[in-house]
Amino acid sequence: MGREKVMAGRPTLDHIGIAVESLDAGVEFYRALGLELDGVEEVAEQGVRVGFLPVGDTRLELLEPTGESSPIARHLARRGPGLHHVCLRVDDIRAAMASLAERGYTLLSDDPQPGAHGCLVCFVHPRSTGGVLLELSQPAGHPHRG
Amino acid sequence: MGREKVMAGRPTLDHIGIAVESLDAGVEFYRALGLELDGVEEVAEQGVRVGFLPVGDTRLELLEPTGESSPIARHLARRGPGLHHVCLRVDDIRAAMASLAERGYTLLSDDPQPGAHGCLVCFVHPRSTGGVLLELSQPAGHPHRG
Repeated sequence: MGREKVMAGRPTLDHIGIAVESLDAGVEFYRALGLELDGVEEVAEQGVRVGFLPVGDTRLELLEPTGESSPIARHLARRGPGLHHVCLRVDDIRAAMASLAERGYTLLSDDPQPGAHGCLVCFVHPRSTGGVLLELSQPAGHPHRG
Repeated sequence: MGREKVMAGRPTLDHIGIAVESLDAGVEFYRALGLELDGVEEVAEQGVRVGFLPVGDTRLELLEPTGESSPIARHLARRGPGLHHVCLRVDDIRAAMASLAERGYTLLSDDPQPGAHGCLVCFVHPRSTGGVLLELSQPAGHPHRG
């Protein structure tokens, strides 16, 4: 099995997640640099409001907690605001997960989870990545969906 | 003066800086995801060895300290390894710096500093950006150089 788990293509950078106390204040700073907010979405399951700021072929995602049980609220309490995670977009998330698992990297779920916009996502534990909370995301409608 | 400091164009994402204890171990993880190392450069003034990993139209930069006085060594001691900074590429770094300064954001230098590959760079203090150490970079040979 292991040898078949070859990556289909190089990942691209889907987004950088940034924990903010306030979406409005966060957006104001990036706007001063010429970036523009391209929508806000509340993700109830994660307890966050997300502000999307396109930059080149990727985007910044500002993550504001909507409640105290939000992982972002816990991050703010423990580490303060700032860089939270990096998300790489992959063609085949199951192949990527298998590639990491067989090399001993720790995934936060055994199967891909539903993410925003119909994506499939999985997080890799920062302990096994050199301190980076890394998200993998496979876009909706991709042939490797099944 | 202030009103003339309009941004020439939207910034793009130049790179994400990631502090690592060891370049070799850091590269190994990203290689398992299909990314490849595209060169290593030692920046003596910063006390770092930098490993470049292209991803989409941007790149990850893994930053390994070469000595204890390196800012990256201090970051590792204080916060551990992980996400360190985000670098936005701008057409006109002086206009971007002026735009931020006149809105009260704190820059870490009054003038752009020489960076790798002939770039001009400037850092914005995380205290004024919502916890993100933000680097601005203007590529070498740009018309706004003077």
